[in-house]
Amino acid sequence: MNSTTEVYSSRVKRVRQQLKTLEIDALLVSLGADLPYLVGATAMPLERLTMLVVKQDEHPQMIVPELEAPLMPEMPDVFAILPWQEGSDPMDDLIEVLGDASTVAFGDQAWAQFLVELLQRRPELKVRRSSEVLTPLRIRKDAAELAALRVAAAAADRVVARLQQGDITLVGRTEAQVSRQIAEQLVEEGHEFHNFSIVAAGANAASPHHHADDTVIQRGQGVLFDIGGTYDGYCSDITRCVYLGEPDGEFQDAYDVLFEAQAAGVAAATVGTTFEDIDAASRQIIEDAGYGKYFMHRVGHGIGMSAHEDPYLVSGNTERLEAGHCFSIEPGIYIEGKFGMRLEDIVIAHESGPEPINLVPHELAVIDA
Amino acid sequence: MNSTTEVYSSRVKRVRQQLKTLEIDALLVSLGADLPYLVGATAMPLERLTMLVVKQDEHPQMIVPELEAPLMPEMPDVFAILPWQEGSDPMDDLIEVLGDASTVAFGDQAWAQFLVELLQRRPELKVRRSSEVLTPLRIRKDAAELAALRVAAAAADRVVARLQQGDITLVGRTEAQVSRQIAEQLVEEGHEFHNFSIVAAGANAASPHHHADDTVIQRGQGVLFDIGGTYDGYCSDITRCVYLGEPDGEFQDAYDVLFEAQAAGVAAATVGTTFEDIDAASRQIIEDAGYGKYFMHRVGHGIGMSAHEDPYLVSGNTERLEAGHCFSIEPGIYIEGKFGMRLEDIVIAHESGPEPINLVPHELAVIDA
Repeated sequence: MNSTTEVYSSRVKRVRQQLKTLEIDALLVSLGADLPYLVGATAMPLERLTMLVVKQDEHPQMIVPELEAPLMPEMPDVFAILPWQEGSDPMDDLIEVLGDASTVAFGDQAWAQFLVELLQRRPELKVRRSSEVLTPLRIRKDAAELAALRVAAAAADRVVARLQQGDITLVGRTEAQVSRQIAEQLVEEGHEFHNFSIVAAGANAASPHHHADDTVIQRGQGVLFDIGGTYDGYCSDITRCVYLGEPDGEFQDAYDVLFEAQAAGVAAATVGTTFEDIDAASRQIIEDAGYGKYFMHRVGHGIGMSAHEDPYLVSGNTERLEAGHCFSIEPGIYIEGKFGMRLEDIVIAHESGPEPINLVPHELAVIDA
Repeated sequence: MNSTTEVYSSRVKRVRQQLKTLEIDALLVSLGADLPYLVGATAMPLERLTMLVVKQDEHPQMIVPELEAPLMPEMPDVFAILPWQEGSDPMDDLIEVLGDASTVAFGDQAWAQFLVELLQRRPELKVRRSSEVLTPLRIRKDAAELAALRVAAAAADRVVARLQQGDITLVGRTEAQVSRQIAEQLVEEGHEFHNFSIVAAGANAASPHHHADDTVIQRGQGVLFDIGGTYDGYCSDITRCVYLGEPDGEFQDAYDVLFEAQAAGVAAATVGTTFEDIDAASRQIIEDAGYGKYFMHRVGHGIGMSAHEDPYLVSGNTERLEAGHCFSIEPGIYIEGKFGMRLEDIVIAHESGPEPINLVPHELAVIDA
């Protein structure tokens, strides 16, 4: 076994232990980050079923379309490959591999059609979420994962730095044009692919997930950038705002509050604190300044091989921060018809305190436009 | 109502009729093309639930995260928007909207986690696939849809033409570099985004879904390109091969067979023919030439707002071709360790016969490299 195989073997072993603890007979994973995390393979988002079945005491099996079998990593010590031929029904293979399993954990992000088909064949099957099994593993990152997340963050930072320094032309171009350029630069900086590049100018930024469109960016506007990609399997995600020209007092005042709220969220991210308390620490600053109703989303989400994953830093989540958690701190202020702003870093939790891994300036970048 | 609203209203009306015919109480759609097809909206591939609920006799409701509500098209005549606040559980809203529904059709491509959660709350619920309801609508394209598919195909054709004419440098570059350039050109030609750009050189092409990698493309190799994107909501998908230098006899002989098989598949696509017979018509040419074991996938798939959708042209599918169906014809020959080749057009079925909408040459493009 080489070291890569050892990592996956060890993860599969922990899954099998989890299955016993949780009294689940089999874990079924397909699309999403569960599969690359567990065995370094990916499923294609298509109608042909690819699914890894991990049972408590049998060797894991990967059900895969014959024509995609050549893409599977060969790790016979970790899992066997069970190719199915075009025209046959992979549900037959799945049913056979499941055997007399009565409770399964089904991949959170697998297409629901496969679960519907499985339940039509095995209506008595008890189904739980794959995250019950995998979140306890995936939520705490090991040293190699943290290193990958830092590299991804640094690559995104380099693109943001150009925006903050005015090296990417904004005025007179459309949001969509700038968004495409950012996407290309995320890849040039080493990401395998870009996941998103929100560019929202002026009042468009009041919609937190605005889709970059044909709006022409103008002087006298704030512009919000929320960008990220996947680097060596791990995600980046950063938000910064720039202002084209001298910001008016209302914008600057709100930004000063946001700046303080984001720093307070990071500072509150100490091991042992509940996730809802971290959310509240940041939110309180915004509420105290009178902007509470303009901040309508949670303060952050976990990040790793998925852009969003556990833990979620949201009211009602009374779980506690542990060392090795990695997550965003990203408060925002959104005033419809006027402007929107958000400030986001990815942060790693250590026993010694929070480590933000996005290092470009947090101040509003004022660009002489 | 404007004309766009009328299209969606009419589709929703047909869905409600389908629900009655199939004795399904509610259709639940989220990720994938069902939602844009029905109401021109999209769900984000994230953990926050966006889901349209269409019942037989109630006004449709769109459950959507409050922070994404501004992105929803406002068409109150077609559906009501039901925003849920961060920290609350959208399953509560879904359960309430479902009321006493006992049978639902669940979105094929929705994340399975939402179905698992729904079944934990409503274990007696009978679940069927959304495609039962929607395939009969989506499978036959109307005039506007066919026009969009032709525009998408023409955009992809323009990129392929450059490859065939040697206008995109291949020799000495990696597959991944060329793949990225093709992705950019698909967008420059008008696609909103590129979906895939397979570049497979030499023996790499023997893996039908090869991922473009760091393989350096060389003289004396065949190179397979399978590329596509989304243009105005509709997908393109085309495969062509080029040869860098003079092809050897073995490659050219196989290509001649492939060329004939692809043309035979198109010619067999007449209204009333079963899908498996169209597959067989193309396959027979390849089998007769002795390459049968090297063609291990179906001859084609439907295409529309999804890159792959019904109908599937595969052995065992005894449904029959109808006017308005739109699908690929794409036989291939894959010899491990040697080479691979595939030739693909998108074709529209008319009463008068098949209309291929990819119009660039089908011959092997020989590039003086």
